[in-house]
Amino acid sequence: MAVQTVASTTDTAASPVDLGPAAALSCRECGHRVPLGPVFACEECFGPLEIAYDFSAYDTEELRRRIEAGPANIWRYAPLLPVPADVATKPNINPGWTKLVKADNLARELGVTGGLYVKDDSGNPTHSFKDRVVAQALEAARAFGFTTLSCSSTGNLAGAVGAAAARAGFRSCVFIPHDLEQGKVVMAAVYGGELVGIEGNYDDVNRFCSELIGDPAGEGWGFVNVNLRPYYAEGSKTLAYEICEQLGWQLPDQIVVPIASGSQLTKIDKGLQELIKLGLVEDKPYKIFGAQAEGCSPVSTAYKAGHDVVRPQKPNTIAKSLAIGNPADGPYVLDIARRTGGAVEDVTDEQVVDAIKLLARTEGIFAETAGGVTVGVTRKLIENGVLDPSLTTVVLNTGDGLKTLDAVAGTGLTATIRPNLESFREAGLV
Amino acid sequence: MAVQTVASTTDTAASPVDLGPAAALSCRECGHRVPLGPVFACEECFGPLEIAYDFSAYDTEELRRRIEAGPANIWRYAPLLPVPADVATKPNINPGWTKLVKADNLARELGVTGGLYVKDDSGNPTHSFKDRVVAQALEAARAFGFTTLSCSSTGNLAGAVGAAAARAGFRSCVFIPHDLEQGKVVMAAVYGGELVGIEGNYDDVNRFCSELIGDPAGEGWGFVNVNLRPYYAEGSKTLAYEICEQLGWQLPDQIVVPIASGSQLTKIDKGLQELIKLGLVEDKPYKIFGAQAEGCSPVSTAYKAGHDVVRPQKPNTIAKSLAIGNPADGPYVLDIARRTGGAVEDVTDEQVVDAIKLLARTEGIFAETAGGVTVGVTRKLIENGVLDPSLTTVVLNTGDGLKTLDAVAGTGLTATIRPNLESFREAGLV
Repeated sequence: MAVQTVASTTDTAASPVDLGPAAALSCRECGHRVPLGPVFACEECFGPLEIAYDFSAYDTEELRRRIEAGPANIWRYAPLLPVPADVATKPNINPGWTKLVKADNLARELGVTGGLYVKDDSGNPTHSFKDRVVAQALEAARAFGFTTLSCSSTGNLAGAVGAAAARAGFRSCVFIPHDLEQGKVVMAAVYGGELVGIEGNYDDVNRFCSELIGDPAGEGWGFVNVNLRPYYAEGSKTLAYEICEQLGWQLPDQIVVPIASGSQLTKIDKGLQELIKLGLVEDKPYKIFGAQAEGCSPVSTAYKAGHDVVRPQKPNTIAKSLAIGNPADGPYVLDIARRTGGAVEDVTDEQVVDAIKLLARTEGIFAETAGGVTVGVTRKLIENGVLDPSLTTVVLNTGDGLKTLDAVAGTGLTATIRPNLESFREAGLV
Repeated sequence: MAVQTVASTTDTAASPVDLGPAAALSCRECGHRVPLGPVFACEECFGPLEIAYDFSAYDTEELRRRIEAGPANIWRYAPLLPVPADVATKPNINPGWTKLVKADNLARELGVTGGLYVKDDSGNPTHSFKDRVVAQALEAARAFGFTTLSCSSTGNLAGAVGAAAARAGFRSCVFIPHDLEQGKVVMAAVYGGELVGIEGNYDDVNRFCSELIGDPAGEGWGFVNVNLRPYYAEGSKTLAYEICEQLGWQLPDQIVVPIASGSQLTKIDKGLQELIKLGLVEDKPYKIFGAQAEGCSPVSTAYKAGHDVVRPQKPNTIAKSLAIGNPADGPYVLDIARRTGGAVEDVTDEQVVDAIKLLARTEGIFAETAGGVTVGVTRKLIENGVLDPSLTTVVLNTGDGLKTLDAVAGTGLTATIRPNLESFREAGLV
């Protein structure tokens, strides 16, 4: 981690920014606070920085009315996010307020009696939950005066950054391994920003990006998941807010969340805690379950072994959007799963494919491989008696099946016939 | 057209159905009325049947409040659709209430000063406007006691039918040409219904479906765009309702709509007329423009030649979802374009691709080829002085770019570098 990523109090105090209720950055490890700025690591202990808020002025019922009267996107929660109050008037991709689908058919198949819901983030503008975090990072980039939005990516993030930058009038520059599949290159390139292939693997891409942030050449560049990470990560809180509001301002009993870096799961927990503290939902126990693919299961492996630390793995799974072998927030995920009475589980690639088909067949939702992971893990947790089918359960689908068509490439025609009734009858379709 | 598709008054009167404000079926040619039923052609003149409503009981302001308090999908307009009042409580795919994006960047590029909006239907559950019409057909199928939902398709419709049937607990059986591209087969097959390949071309598929409807083997089958067509087509009215409500209950001055069969354009006009008659919007002139690809431009060819009839063409364009060479509603489209002071125009495949990239680069919206057609035609109509850039203009994007990736397959990396700053500087990216 380069020293340039750490700001001193003096540096940032010189340029105050309006990010609404965001009061400061606070270290998750040692609690040290610094003013808001494009930094992500604590100057004291190098721990991760996150946003500290001042919510003290809010009246619960007034806040609830303000949210309910807000736009049908994440900016309805502007009072709880690091964004200026007038964020909804600025050009952005405006993700969120995606459907919470009551999944009665899937519930029947899985034996869930307490109410099963799929939070379907494939409805976002570029069809993955990444739109939530990128929209958030974009507002931070605007506040800090950045003019280029950047990231390293192998998929969903590249499209989200390209689209958001285009709408907001930012230059974008996305770095990817040079030999990525052509389909993914097209999805990232179509928004017209710079798309730079790096001769090397994804680790080489990330190393290069860290170097660029510390160099004068990176001046004015906001890397959404590096120097803007504390802001970016907060976007995931909106999943928690929406689920509770869509349930009629109630906490679900159980949530099943995919784990890549683990950030999403920790921020969903943070969002739920905030709603409780603000009085927007009644305080009651909830359990958070983490879902991984067996081919990249460092957190579930640690969970099952009873470890507090996560040993890195070399990913080998079709669930590419979750394939982070050394998840930064792994230890925090373990802590949340254990504290809330949840668990972390994994499923094989075959089970992922089966779960994608199960969700499509029962609810008409075509999920990305990451959605196959959460649905597959939900099924496994019920079979193992870990997840309680008599409780209200929410499963996240964080992406769209159109982006990972290869996973279900074996799916095909149920019959081939000649264009006449005789052939139709012979095929046994009536 | 088979005689079995025509119902007599007596047939249908025997089984009254609750489809809300829908009072009867009425022939668009001769005005002959028959009770609601699964029929689509007039028994008197074989003209197309459409829904006749009884809206007489509505108070304007009460209706407006009822709509605004409704769900964030097409069922907010249940009082204006052929569906029972409690439709929102039944299992369906619940499309609609998609974003109306204020496209300021695109407006600047095209020189539009009066306000330019993109109605982005890629946000629907299966990412095309077809979810609107299929959701509507599904409710008719339920009302008529059908148990199988069916269609012939080469793309978007297959996915919409598969997904909606899955959610609603219907059997689905979709007929496609047996040699369709593998990607399209997967998108249709993943929902787990019957997917039948017909040895023949799309015309053979359609001929077979007509035969099946007239046969006992087709008993209990609702073909969304054949025997359920009058209901199905009404789904497109919701585009008009949403655009006006999202503009603050105002008519746009100009709308650019893609033309396949032409049904969508005629129903958007019908929807606008209803809003005027109900007093929900102020009566004022509006212009409707039709958009086709040059490679399948029977309606724009007739428009430019001043003809009232449309001569069929053999389609040859990348805009496959618009490639209907003999559009059933072509004459009605010509009439509406002329009556409202609009026009019908077409663009080349190259202009379609340019327009897809233009929309992505300016607004972060990745459109299907059909969206490239409407944006490209909008640009051409402005350049030719036909569309007035000083007026409020809405352009429809009816599908998602992920479904027609091949169209922009040439898009790629802007640079390839080695993973170091020196190589980065050499590439001229700063």
